[in-house]
Amino acid sequence: VAELPACERLRARVADVVDLRGAGFLLTWDQATHMPPGGAPARARQIALLRQLAHERFVDPEVGRLLAAAEAEVAGLPADDVEAALVRVTRRDYERETAIPASFTRRFFHHMAASYQTWTEARPADDVQRVVPLLEETLDLSRTLAGYLGPADHVADPLIARADHGFTVAALRPLFARLREALVPLARRVAACEPPDDAFLRRGYPLGAQFAFALARAAEFGYDLRRGRLDPTHHPFAIEFSIDDVRITTRGREDDLREALFCTFHESGHGMYHQGLDGRFEATLLADGASAGVHESQSRMWENRVGRSHAFWSYAFPKLRSEFPEQLADVELDDFHRAVNVVRPGTIRTRADELTYDLHVIVRFELELELLEGRLAVRDLPDAWQARYADVVGLEASSHRDGVLQDVHWFSREIGGAFQGYTIGNVLAAQFWDAAVREYPTIPDDIGRGDFAPLHGWTQRRIHRLGRVHDPLDLIARVTGGPIDPAPYLAYLHDKYGALYRLETGDGADPPP
Amino acid sequence: VAELPACERLRARVADVVDLRGAGFLLTWDQATHMPPGGAPARARQIALLRQLAHERFVDPEVGRLLAAAEAEVAGLPADDVEAALVRVTRRDYERETAIPASFTRRFFHHMAASYQTWTEARPADDVQRVVPLLEETLDLSRTLAGYLGPADHVADPLIARADHGFTVAALRPLFARLREALVPLARRVAACEPPDDAFLRRGYPLGAQFAFALARAAEFGYDLRRGRLDPTHHPFAIEFSIDDVRITTRGREDDLREALFCTFHESGHGMYHQGLDGRFEATLLADGASAGVHESQSRMWENRVGRSHAFWSYAFPKLRSEFPEQLADVELDDFHRAVNVVRPGTIRTRADELTYDLHVIVRFELELELLEGRLAVRDLPDAWQARYADVVGLEASSHRDGVLQDVHWFSREIGGAFQGYTIGNVLAAQFWDAAVREYPTIPDDIGRGDFAPLHGWTQRRIHRLGRVHDPLDLIARVTGGPIDPAPYLAYLHDKYGALYRLETGDGADPPP
Repeated sequence: VAELPACERLRARVADVVDLRGAGFLLTWDQATHMPPGGAPARARQIALLRQLAHERFVDPEVGRLLAAAEAEVAGLPADDVEAALVRVTRRDYERETAIPASFTRRFFHHMAASYQTWTEARPADDVQRVVPLLEETLDLSRTLAGYLGPADHVADPLIARADHGFTVAALRPLFARLREALVPLARRVAACEPPDDAFLRRGYPLGAQFAFALARAAEFGYDLRRGRLDPTHHPFAIEFSIDDVRITTRGREDDLREALFCTFHESGHGMYHQGLDGRFEATLLADGASAGVHESQSRMWENRVGRSHAFWSYAFPKLRSEFPEQLADVELDDFHRAVNVVRPGTIRTRADELTYDLHVIVRFELELELLEGRLAVRDLPDAWQARYADVVGLEASSHRDGVLQDVHWFSREIGGAFQGYTIGNVLAAQFWDAAVREYPTIPDDIGRGDFAPLHGWTQRRIHRLGRVHDPLDLIARVTGGPIDPAPYLAYLHDKYGALYRLETGDGADPPP
Repeated sequence: VAELPACERLRARVADVVDLRGAGFLLTWDQATHMPPGGAPARARQIALLRQLAHERFVDPEVGRLLAAAEAEVAGLPADDVEAALVRVTRRDYERETAIPASFTRRFFHHMAASYQTWTEARPADDVQRVVPLLEETLDLSRTLAGYLGPADHVADPLIARADHGFTVAALRPLFARLREALVPLARRVAACEPPDDAFLRRGYPLGAQFAFALARAAEFGYDLRRGRLDPTHHPFAIEFSIDDVRITTRGREDDLREALFCTFHESGHGMYHQGLDGRFEATLLADGASAGVHESQSRMWENRVGRSHAFWSYAFPKLRSEFPEQLADVELDDFHRAVNVVRPGTIRTRADELTYDLHVIVRFELELELLEGRLAVRDLPDAWQARYADVVGLEASSHRDGVLQDVHWFSREIGGAFQGYTIGNVLAAQFWDAAVREYPTIPDDIGRGDFAPLHGWTQRRIHRLGRVHDPLDLIARVTGGPIDPAPYLAYLHDKYGALYRLETGDGADPPP
């Protein structure tokens, strides 16, 4: 690196930006886990201040000069050279962050704070009319923001690209249409079956023991507790202050054993991704997941592909039963496996099962595009939500509270770019799983013996350690040998739920061609 | 305030400095309570970065210009006007922070990091020779630092003034001499007595229940859990991120009930001070204790004057016994009260009882002055320590580990200015207590009934809410009617230990005239 002095100086400058963000993330983590209620006003000021300082340090014209000099230094290097990749992602982030005028950012955050506050009152009151004018302003700001971020074929493209670089409306529309076509009939067939008994999951499980069990499994998966920890919160998340301090959060219900288990497994997948980054990326912009969708693929893989599998529970269920002997005395492994995979179509995304989850995402994605395109007016959105749910999920919410007011997203950030990552993650999780098993065919058996190292090691080598070195589409091609493809995911869902619900082949239970 | 535009602009500037410090304190708190070990390197960077940013924002020449303009605006106001006080303490801090060259600060922190690291290795190895050259450098840096902070009658004065503004070696020497004269013979008489039985304090008390009991009492004292919380740590402390988020920490031993109780009570006193500040001081430099000694007076009052009193335990002991019925079944209130006040002279300051604690402080204070004056060479310090302990405390440490290597202070910060506050706090706690009881004579009885509001309310009104509005000597005079005076403290100790150990009057058991 000695012969790349501009790169070196750029690294030093950006290190402070990354460290300021990491410090700010600690304030956010504490706010969501340990902060007493009185701390809220000062905390909001301090988080905003650190964000502002990180922004100011990043958009400093000196960073622009160093970037230009660094680009000259790395001009001859291959695209997957670490230094070249570092300059490339720094340039991308720099352009995005300098494209947005400070006056817009102030107006945007001011509006979002007001919008969020109103939502916290309007949702319990089921008062959808109150948020309509705010959402109209949010839509307007979202379009303006997309405009700053650059010209694109579709107004949503720049918003999507911030989270999932390389993905576009043009690419996602057919992908989501294919999922919708396949999942709607499959989910209806499953919903028509008698659901398995899952009443024993509600027998009263002390929360502390649930968290300890879930964390012990996450540690077995590969989540490193010397560089992480688990805390309860309201809305679980994973968050990182450095590569070596990556924390996960969870929540639980004494009357539902699933909540703590699958929240913890999910967040441990995100946590392992960041813990698995190459240590040399510390305090650089390479120290992050390749994209929101690739990140989500890791959480969904451990939550669903591993955590809801028969192989995993053949290893873990005896441990769980010895932890909760009274509650699970009369429960067999197969009953338990069926119960944690029960399908019950509902109106709430965050409580959706694996099979219907993407239908919730698809509804939101479609409505967002229609709003941004101007084909749907905000005042018509509440009814459009209900109609779309009837159409896609097969039932309507009994209130706007559980309808258009359900998610915080549209009331705390721009419209567009937030939801696609969830479904991209599900699709990629299946492709990555298949690639891992092609390379290490014993992975399913290893999991059945409680040996998660082959899968974790594969994800670490093929995905985690690379951080943002490869652009997402490039990473996907390197790992899977091709582009994003819903076929493996749909085949997995058809096989799994076909077997669980003993569906006849034909009529929706076969994998699509 | 509309007619004080410079004051208003100064406030806004300094608010960011205070908020950056508060954010940095959260990083420190997390480091000492929840951080996984892997987080250490990034955390050190992030804390240093926030400290540097706070420093840069404070010493900005624009702050100097605004200060001058603000001083003109408040020129006609009385000294105890809040705006005038704010400008005064901001000027004082500004002069101190701008007096120290950045190059010195870098050299100082670099040396201290190395010194601390060496101490962590040298102390377990009892290798005092290894730290001698480092301590010589620390002494040299401490003298240089004192020089930057301004001319003074004694080289230690500027260092003492940073923590305890208004206090000088000339004032503290006679105060400490008087304490030494009175406490040495009293402690020897008590040590010659048969100590009360305290074996029942070591019967195995689960830590969680200890912490819960101690925190419940701290909340009854007045520590507000909606604006604070308690966490275990290695070296307990109180820390504030804003007036409405003030956290305390504690530690405990299953085999010694005292540790968690009195650490928690102590830190709750610090916590109540900060929670009790006038809310209008939020994000200003008035939002702190008047001095280190005044702060310590509050922690010592709740730890000792309340927490080790017979009145308090007449209320709290039945609760404690119902919490630990097996361990305390055969213990009576009077036995318990004697056991938590047992006197056993030792060589470790942090384990010292109330009666001998100040002797430990006096040894350090005397040695610091001799070092700074050049009358004692660092190479002679280990032996001087042992000789002074024999002289003052009555026994020598069996190793340098428990001698001169005992405290982290000399290996992590400058020599001078750190220790006097502990004893000033003890002395002031007695004076403040007497003033409170003069005004509200029922306070001791109230405490016996578990009503702590009269004492807490008095400290809040007379001391806490004022923050740094009054200089410490001024505050002491307003609250007590006179200067700092050891007589009430010595009278209290003579009365208390005379009664507990049934000492005859005369021969050291009387209060001094």
